[in-house]
Amino acid sequence: MKTLIVNSGSSSIKYQLIDVTSFDVLQSGEAAQIGFPGSYIRSKSKTRMKHINVALPDHEAGIRMVLSGLLDPDIGVIKSLDEIGAVGHRIVHGGKYFDGPAIVDDDVLDKIKKLIKLAPLHNDAAAKGIEACMHQMQGIPQVVSFDTAFHMTIPPEHHTYALPYEYYTDYDVRKYGFHGISHDYVSRRVAALMGRRRESMRIVSCHLGNGGSICAIKKGKSFDTSMGFTPLDGIMMGTRCGSIDPAIIPFIMEEKDLTPQEMDAILNRESGLLGVSGISNDIREIDEARYSGNYRADLALKMYAESVRRYIGAFAFEMGGCDALTITAGIGQNSAMMRRMILEHMEGFGIVCDWEANANVGAKDCAISTEGSPIQVYVIHTNEEYIIAKDCERLCAKPEEIAFDKDPLKEPAKDFDTSKGIPFIEE
Amino acid sequence: MKTLIVNSGSSSIKYQLIDVTSFDVLQSGEAAQIGFPGSYIRSKSKTRMKHINVALPDHEAGIRMVLSGLLDPDIGVIKSLDEIGAVGHRIVHGGKYFDGPAIVDDDVLDKIKKLIKLAPLHNDAAAKGIEACMHQMQGIPQVVSFDTAFHMTIPPEHHTYALPYEYYTDYDVRKYGFHGISHDYVSRRVAALMGRRRESMRIVSCHLGNGGSICAIKKGKSFDTSMGFTPLDGIMMGTRCGSIDPAIIPFIMEEKDLTPQEMDAILNRESGLLGVSGISNDIREIDEARYSGNYRADLALKMYAESVRRYIGAFAFEMGGCDALTITAGIGQNSAMMRRMILEHMEGFGIVCDWEANANVGAKDCAISTEGSPIQVYVIHTNEEYIIAKDCERLCAKPEEIAFDKDPLKEPAKDFDTSKGIPFIEE
Repeated sequence: MKTLIVNSGSSSIKYQLIDVTSFDVLQSGEAAQIGFPGSYIRSKSKTRMKHINVALPDHEAGIRMVLSGLLDPDIGVIKSLDEIGAVGHRIVHGGKYFDGPAIVDDDVLDKIKKLIKLAPLHNDAAAKGIEACMHQMQGIPQVVSFDTAFHMTIPPEHHTYALPYEYYTDYDVRKYGFHGISHDYVSRRVAALMGRRRESMRIVSCHLGNGGSICAIKKGKSFDTSMGFTPLDGIMMGTRCGSIDPAIIPFIMEEKDLTPQEMDAILNRESGLLGVSGISNDIREIDEARYSGNYRADLALKMYAESVRRYIGAFAFEMGGCDALTITAGIGQNSAMMRRMILEHMEGFGIVCDWEANANVGAKDCAISTEGSPIQVYVIHTNEEYIIAKDCERLCAKPEEIAFDKDPLKEPAKDFDTSKGIPFIEE
Repeated sequence: MKTLIVNSGSSSIKYQLIDVTSFDVLQSGEAAQIGFPGSYIRSKSKTRMKHINVALPDHEAGIRMVLSGLLDPDIGVIKSLDEIGAVGHRIVHGGKYFDGPAIVDDDVLDKIKKLIKLAPLHNDAAAKGIEACMHQMQGIPQVVSFDTAFHMTIPPEHHTYALPYEYYTDYDVRKYGFHGISHDYVSRRVAALMGRRRESMRIVSCHLGNGGSICAIKKGKSFDTSMGFTPLDGIMMGTRCGSIDPAIIPFIMEEKDLTPQEMDAILNRESGLLGVSGISNDIREIDEARYSGNYRADLALKMYAESVRRYIGAFAFEMGGCDALTITAGIGQNSAMMRRMILEHMEGFGIVCDWEANANVGAKDCAISTEGSPIQVYVIHTNEEYIIAKDCERLCAKPEEIAFDKDPLKEPAKDFDTSKGIPFIEE
């Protein structure tokens, strides 16, 4: 079965066409600058790349160009849309409604739209992407996989806030958590690599990208996570503040005479590594500045490492123990320096790293702890598309189409293509 | 030397007259309902108690009645104010200015008043108490001990927020931490009980009262703490929410059309154990409701325990190890049930409790861990007055007045009077 994975943002649509049987990425690409001047579409097959500047007034136009790219005589890999067995949409917010993937119908779409209030940018764009696909791909099932769904197993004592209880019952204010698709993948993968059943393990999963979250996974289920009602909470991030004393917000709003919207923008886009360092949200640039003696660069990196370390400790204690610690996403996969800053000096609690292995992490998933380390530490290359494709297969594939022989979770040495950017040629 | 310890709140002044040499409490009491109808003064000596209903329009009047109580022919224990060697004031906020106690002069008083912006209720009342004492006790040194001072050793990577850096430099937005006097006392005390130097230890101190905070104490210095810019942050408390996703605040303000003042009052006075349980901020009442099957009572207690447990883990990992865990203050000293909820299932990380010892904690400080527990756990009865009296002694006593032979820190079995309420007779 071929599955089209769609990730709709407010001004972009990223896609991958995946053969679920072989788990090959047949074609990928992006419709960018939707609704803005300079919009374009990029497509990449296994052998060719194509870039077309084209007006994309809305998500309907974006999806139209994505589909015409798939059918394009030069670069396209399918002859007819009927070859697509399902479309998998990655949705940020499933609220309290979804504890797993779903096939889109009117009720599902209504709920996604209801949740726009909780994730204004993300769910609005996702709903537009789904509707465009429904219009243009009639008869092909649309599947939705939610970043929050994995966390619906978090027990009430971890997902309830210590606020008046009516905020929970009447306003749905609770911990939802995000990056669930990634935490699900990574925890499955580390169990496979260790040859263990995830259901018998306690895992702390660190998703460290420009956004980031930590997740406690107990017996295969999300038990707690650092992001909360929104993706603002938890660890320090590229431009987000993470957990702060909530009383700071009214104080600063009054001191600087800020509107709620201005304050929100500052907490989400001008804080975190960028706000402290004053340099960048990219730890590579901050690290360079640190080596030339920049105090705030040094401070920002230390703060980041400590904020992750605190959650690792908190969740390990919360589960009463920990078998494996995983690190993934942009910063996690690529920065040996940051991994070391986070993991140093924790031998007393069972984290014994092999610093040479840590320094030599490449494109393959691997352990960076010593063989005898009570808590095994792995760097995993996350693969959210895998989970979404599997969701599509599970919900939509005919029995004869299901094949697990090429399941990457079972292939410890498989070399995933983890490049996030798409190289392209102008045309 | 005799020291008068004064704790000025917005409508009350509590006091103790202490003989620093013997560390005896000679007299104690409270001026209550200051500025309100029904104001009164209570005094208690070793043998007698006295309650007088009297108009107390302001803190000047309150201090006047405290001093006349000390000199009272019936209950008073001194003949002249000259017998008082120093007055020690407990001050909540010392901001960035104070990393230890100070003798009050114009500059010190100015700084305390400057900080009213950061602690409106507390520092304003404290300044009024100091000024009243200065007017009425001329020539007697006034000493100030700060709840924040102990935490001024917290390194920048723990005390800086991941916000635009100018909030730190220009608006003094940083982690201050509170309960420092208690954390200081408790960590000194546990070191004495264990026969170790505090400077060689890593201690996690849990101050669990109606307000509460956790403190990481490394080599005798505060290394991190759960309260932040204000006492709202950190663990769940009696009526305070503790750490929540900051994005909840603007969301709820908009949904319920609340002003910043209303929101502030809800977060500080209608949240925490009270908000979740809907019953009380007193865990004894909540526990009773739990036994009759109340779901929200059960949830509130579990949430409280988990919020403390997370900080214990976070700070233990942050220090790279932990030698002792201490539990103090109202809930910590009195609730065997809550201590057990917090400490259970942490054997994997070195916390091995003796549940019988836990169930039998009385008025004496004692270990509740097994002898072989890698992390020793103690219930300590906090004694903030001790630290304030010692501050007074250090700054004001003549050399011949200093005596350490009765130092309660060195007396493992000493039976402190830990009753918080003052029994009294109507008059």
